[in-house]
Formats: sequence, structure tokens, C-alpha cells
Amino acid sequence: MRMLRAEEFGLTREVEYGTPEQNEAVRQIVEAVRTEGDSALLRYTEQHDRMKLDAASLRVTDAEIQAAYEKVDDAFLTAIREAAVNIRKFHEKQLRQSWVDVQPDGTMLGQLLRPLKRVGVYVPGGKAAYPSSVLMNVIPAQVAGVPEIVMVTPPATGGKSGIDPYILVAAAEAGVKEMYRVGGAQAVAALAYGTVSIPPVDKICGPGNIYVALAKRLVFGAVDIDSIAGPSEIVVLADETANPSYIAADLLSQAEHDEMASAILVTTSTKLAEAVSAEVQRQLATLPRETIARQSIDNYGAVLIAQSTAEAIAVINRMAPEHLEIMVAEPMAMLGRIENAGAIFVGPYSSEPVGDYFAGPNHILPTNGTARFSSPVNVDDFVKKSSLIYYSKEALFSNGDKIMTLARHEGLEAHARAIEIRLEQERE
Amino acid sequence: MRMLRAEEFGLTREVEYGTPEQNEAVRQIVEAVRTEGDSALLRYTEQHDRMKLDAASLRVTDAEIQAAYEKVDDAFLTAIREAAVNIRKFHEKQLRQSWVDVQPDGTMLGQLLRPLKRVGVYVPGGKAAYPSSVLMNVIPAQVAGVPEIVMVTPPATGGKSGIDPYILVAAAEAGVKEMYRVGGAQAVAALAYGTVSIPPVDKICGPGNIYVALAKRLVFGAVDIDSIAGPSEIVVLADETANPSYIAADLLSQAEHDEMASAILVTTSTKLAEAVSAEVQRQLATLPRETIARQSIDNYGAVLIAQSTAEAIAVINRMAPEHLEIMVAEPMAMLGRIENAGAIFVGPYSSEPVGDYFAGPNHILPTNGTARFSSPVNVDDFVKKSSLIYYSKEALFSNGDKIMTLARHEGLEAHARAIEIRLEQERE
Repeated sequence: MRMLRAEEFGLTREVEYGTPEQNEAVRQIVEAVRTEGDSALLRYTEQHDRMKLDAASLRVTDAEIQAAYEKVDDAFLTAIREAAVNIRKFHEKQLRQSWVDVQPDGTMLGQLLRPLKRVGVYVPGGKAAYPSSVLMNVIPAQVAGVPEIVMVTPPATGGKSGIDPYILVAAAEAGVKEMYRVGGAQAVAALAYGTVSIPPVDKICGPGNIYVALAKRLVFGAVDIDSIAGPSEIVVLADETANPSYIAADLLSQAEHDEMASAILVTTSTKLAEAVSAEVQRQLATLPRETIARQSIDNYGAVLIAQSTAEAIAVINRMAPEHLEIMVAEPMAMLGRIENAGAIFVGPYSSEPVGDYFAGPNHILPTNGTARFSSPVNVDDFVKKSSLIYYSKEALFSNGDKIMTLARHEGLEAHARAIEIRLEQERE
Repeated sequence: MRMLRAEEFGLTREVEYGTPEQNEAVRQIVEAVRTEGDSALLRYTEQHDRMKLDAASLRVTDAEIQAAYEKVDDAFLTAIREAAVNIRKFHEKQLRQSWVDVQPDGTMLGQLLRPLKRVGVYVPGGKAAYPSSVLMNVIPAQVAGVPEIVMVTPPATGGKSGIDPYILVAAAEAGVKEMYRVGGAQAVAALAYGTVSIPPVDKICGPGNIYVALAKRLVFGAVDIDSIAGPSEIVVLADETANPSYIAADLLSQAEHDEMASAILVTTSTKLAEAVSAEVQRQLATLPRETIARQSIDNYGAVLIAQSTAEAIAVINRMAPEHLEIMVAEPMAMLGRIENAGAIFVGPYSSEPVGDYFAGPNHILPTNGTARFSSPVNVDDFVKKSSLIYYSKEALFSNGDKIMTLARHEGLEAHARAIEIRLEQERE
């Protein structure tokens, strides 16, 4: 692995905007589906997924879901059910209440919280079709109280003849009752604008390829979207008390995701740095996804040597990693100083896969430095707020003059008169 | 006003994507500022704002802010200070705590909430340069604990020689300490990527023209942005018990904003509908902004006659209005049934301007039907979450097999091995 002084480490945060050709292709697809509906949806499905469907066959049937259950093994089913329970428990703790502030003059001000009505979850068909991600997108929406959750996924997964049965089972276990075999920009457009077969949603979430990402960006505003995921990242902050083989294993668990994934150790200990580097090479050699992981380690992996803990923390806050593991003598003492990180894994037993699959917190996390301003997928993402304003007559008479002053200053006389007409008609 | 049966009312929700030329112009400006920094920023300021500045003069000085205070009148200052107190109080009730769930086996799972570090507020220079909007953007960020809040605004407001002193005073009162005289797409790019003079921010909020909106859309991902505001809307739900002159005044307070604003009455009472229509015409005649308001009323205003309260509520939920006023005999009974609305004003004294200026809830609300999935500006918009995962050895030994099952099912062997190496090395 590259070994650098922490101060030398440069960050390049590139946002993926797509090529002009990709943007134009997506714009055309979205526009066609918006105006032509199902016929465009089916046309692009035939063109891109080489699958000739009719409108009646878009929806996945109950029989198919039952058949999928026959194909998955029991150990998987047991594990994913328990994971779902943990994910549900963690997200239930995020639930919030509507509130109202009742004031002595009779005024009431508040915030009403309500779930979105209909949410679409995109599940990609390629190598990143993960049942665990289905749970991580669906369960928070369900906990928020979203009554209609719909899944879309390409009609054939990774060259197979249909949708991966594990995806169907994960969706069914998470509680999805409405699934469609459609993917790409055309699926995003259908969710955003609706077709005869697929009613429109209020929010689209879930990862996809560049066409899906561009389509989501394009329809944002007509519907809400989740953040657009970049390649996965892990940073491990460790000192000489840490076990180098654990660190190496955790770095590699990130590196195997894809060639663009980034795995970085930050440490004040040169000895640990060298031990981890050696361990990474040793463990790499026997990995099934060795080629991918090696490219990731060679191109995006690094060991950063910091002169002090403060310097180590500063570089981590600049990176704002998606995943951060802390394996130092007193890890909890670091927590307050870590400003930017999607998920923080503390201590020797909190290996990243614990959070990826099972513990309960969401594994859909802000990538590419966006932990500076965004958050793991959570229940709030599926809740909207309405302000409540019940102003009393007394409050209006006390404050009307000030409201009119501000309105008139802004040149909005009709605003002032809306107050004035009440004061005039009801002055006693 | 147009009078329609509620069932006939069609919705057209168009998202403003800009023309290809506008998109290309914005892309060039953003790219130039990203790569050239201040020199591009100053070049575009000269080009678009006809103002030749150097880097040293971009920042608004303390002396200018002091001078602005000399120019504003006392009644304005008193009113805006009291409004700021109310806005602060309301938003403080939204503050949430980090939490941790401590489990019997030693595992701790939680959510850490922290403010964004640096936020940029865009204040437009044209007719929509409202001091009240400065408060509504800045105060929630401040309540969230954002340590650095920076304002940008074009170097001259509405043809005047400098920045509107009321804007400077509102920003100073809200607590902004860093202000720059720069606007347009170039200001958005500077906030997103940073220049020598203007360090980059984590989030950009505030309204602007189409170039500002397109620039925000383009930089989204490098930084967070707020939602992109459409024209303002009000819907009034009223029955025969309501005062037609209050309703007309409130509709007009929306209509005067701009020609695209929409003001709609929904009622089951034909008598009320006619009375409100007549009142609107009567009040329109004496408004200073009569021309704007009349165009808005003629083109986007409507009175919808519903056959039942249920039908009235259904059409409102489909519209998802930015502002909803409820003036019926028992208004609180409607609240639970209103699913989609940015702010709900209840009863005869809750005229929309009460919320626009003074009561405390935010006046920056989801427009154009986006109340289906988005919320008034609030403290959560300036807070990010990090998941906390502290897994105990006991938990890892109990659940390691299930985690490995799920990882291996997804073909991610290195994920499984990160668990396995711990179980092997520490099995007793």
C-alpha cells in the first residue's frame, strides 16, 4: 500500500455528472416515458434489457415470489430475518412525534410529521444487487409509516433468466407488496411521472448505474430522491494497540467491493502501518475477488502516517469517510472529535460487515466526502413536516402593527392589508 | 376568478429545467470558477453585474454594516428583532439530541447529531430581496449550531448603487458575520468549490433566479443544497362561516408576489365562492401591485367548488399547497386529513402574513406540489447524523455466523473473513 504522511494526502472529490451523450440519452428516455407512458417503458426495456414484455407482465406476481422462497436456502432466510428485526428496532428509535406549542394567549404553533405516501426503491440488476440493501432502503420507509412501498428492478439479474430470487425474498421479508420488473432511466421516469401500469411515487431511492443516477438527478423536484452514491470508502484510525490482521481484513472487506473503492489506514504508529501493509498483502493473495481488491488497494488504498492524534483526526474530518473504524486504546475519547463520518465503528469487534449486514444501523451511508452534510438513510428521509399556525385574535391585535411594518417595508401592501382588514373589522 | 368544479381542476407540475443554452452557460460559469477561482468570479461579476471589483473588495466590511444600520428606520428594526426572537424560539423546539441504545451484552448503537460546519445563504438582488427571508434561512442554521454562516448577494440590489441596507441589517441581526458582494451562478460555484477569497461551504440555501437554481442543481453532490423554489401558492379551504373579505385579502397577499403566483379557494359553498370573487375584484382595484396581482388571479387563481368536504380535502392533498388556510366552522377537525401542505394556517386570525413575517415557523416552504415529500426549512436541514456502532465481543460471537452467511451469499468473501479472523483468533 502507498504510505504517505497524512499532511501530504490530497483529496479529489469529483462529482459524477456523466458525459453530454449520457445526459442527452437519459433526458430522451425520461421525456419519452413521461409523455408516452407504458409504451416507452416497454420499448426501452426491450432495447436495454433485451426483454420483450407487455404492460400486464410488468408486475411481479405472488406466484413468482412464492417460487423465489423455494429457491433460497434456510441459513440465508434465518439470517436475513434476524437482520430485519435488528434494522427495524434501530430505526424505530428514530421515530419522532408531531408537536405543538400552546401559548397563554391561545396561539398554537407546531410541526406535524407525516410519512410520505408512496416510495419507490430501485434495486440494480448487476453485480451490486444486494438483498441487504433492499432491507436497508425498505425498512426505514416502513418504520416511518409509508403505506405504499414499491420496488423496481431490471427484468433479469446479471445474465440470469429472471430477477434474483434472493432479492425477491428480501423485498417480501421487508414487507414490499408491489414489485415491477423494470430498470434503468426508464424505471426512474416511470416512478417519477407514473404510467398506466406504475403509479407515480413521492420519492425514489436506491443505487444504480450512471443512467439511473442521471435520471434521478433529472427528475428531482418532481419527486424527492436519495443521495447519489459514489464508490465505497473505509478509513481505519488505529494505534499500536490494534491488531494488524483485523485492520487488514476490514480494509480488504471494503476493497473487494469494486476497483474504485477506497481503503485507508490513518495511524501515528509506523510499526502498525508496516504490519498492516504486510497483512494486507498476505490476506489479499487468497481472496476470491483478489483482482478487484488489489486494484482498489493499489489505486485508492493508502496508509497515512500522522504526527499526532490531532493531525490524524484532522485528515479524517477532511476526508469525511463513509465508514470509519476506530481501533485505539481509548476509542470513545475520539468520538466527539470526529465531525464527519457516515458510520463510526468503535473497538476491535465492530468490524464493518457487522454494520453492513446485521447490527441494525443503516448501511446506506454518505460517500465521497458528503458525510460533511448528509446522513445515513434514516426514518426522517421518509417523513415530511407541515408547520401549524393557529394565531389567536389577541396575538394578532398585539403584533399586527409589526407585521404590517415588515410587509410594507418589503413593498407588499396586500400582505399588510390582510392584517389591517381584520384589525379594522374586529376592533372593539 | 375562474370558478370550477373541484373534480375538473387539473394540475400541471412542471419542473424548471432551464433551456439548453441556460444550462450550458451555467455549466461554463461553474467550471470556470471551480478551476480559476477568484479571477473567474470577478470576471463574471463584471460581466453580469456591471461591477468591477477586486478580490479584496468582495467582502462586505464592518463599516458598511454599521452604515446600513444608520439607514434603516426604527420601526423596522424593532419589528425584525422581535420576529427574529420568535423565529429562534420556534426553531429551538426542533433541536434534537444524539442518542445511544446500550444493550445488556455491552453493545451500543446510536446516532450522533452534529451541525454542518459552514453554510452559505444566497440572497437575490432583484425584487425578491426580502430581509425576512434572510432571517428564515439564517436562524435555523444558527439554532442548529452551524459555526460559520456566510451570506452572498449581488453587489447592487435592484438598480441601486450597493447592497440593500435592510438586507445587511437583517443578516447582521440574524448573526451573519461574513458577507460577500457576489451573485449569480458564479456565487454558487464559489460557495461550492471555494476560491482564495471565499472558502467553500457544506450547504447552499436561499432563492435565486434560473441561473442560480441551475447552478445549485449542478453543484449538488459537491455540497448540499436546499430545495429549488417555484412560484408561491396559497389554497384557502373555507365554508359559509368564513369572512369573504379576509379570504380575498389573503388570496391577494399571495397573488401580489408575482404573476406566476397561484391563489385558490376551495369551498363547498357557492355563496361564499361568489362573495370571495366579488371581494377579490373590489380589493384588487386599490392595490399598488394591482397589475401583478391581477395577472396572477386571472391566470393562476381559481375558486373550486367541491361537492363535499371529503372532495375538497382530496383536491387539496393532490395540490399539496405551499400555504393552506383553513377557515371552516371546526378547522382543527380538518388537520389530520390534510396530508400534504407546507404550512397550515388555522382559523380567522391566522392570515398568511402572520407566518410570512412574525409568528416563528419558517416561511420557506415546499412549492409546486413538493409538500408531498418535503418540508419547511428547519433545524434538521443543518444537522447531519453519524451512526455509532460499538459491537461487543459477546455479540460478535453470537451473531458472527449469520453475518458470514449473508456476506458469503452476496459473494463478498472478504466481508466474511473480517468476521472469521476475529472468531478464530479469540475463540477460547
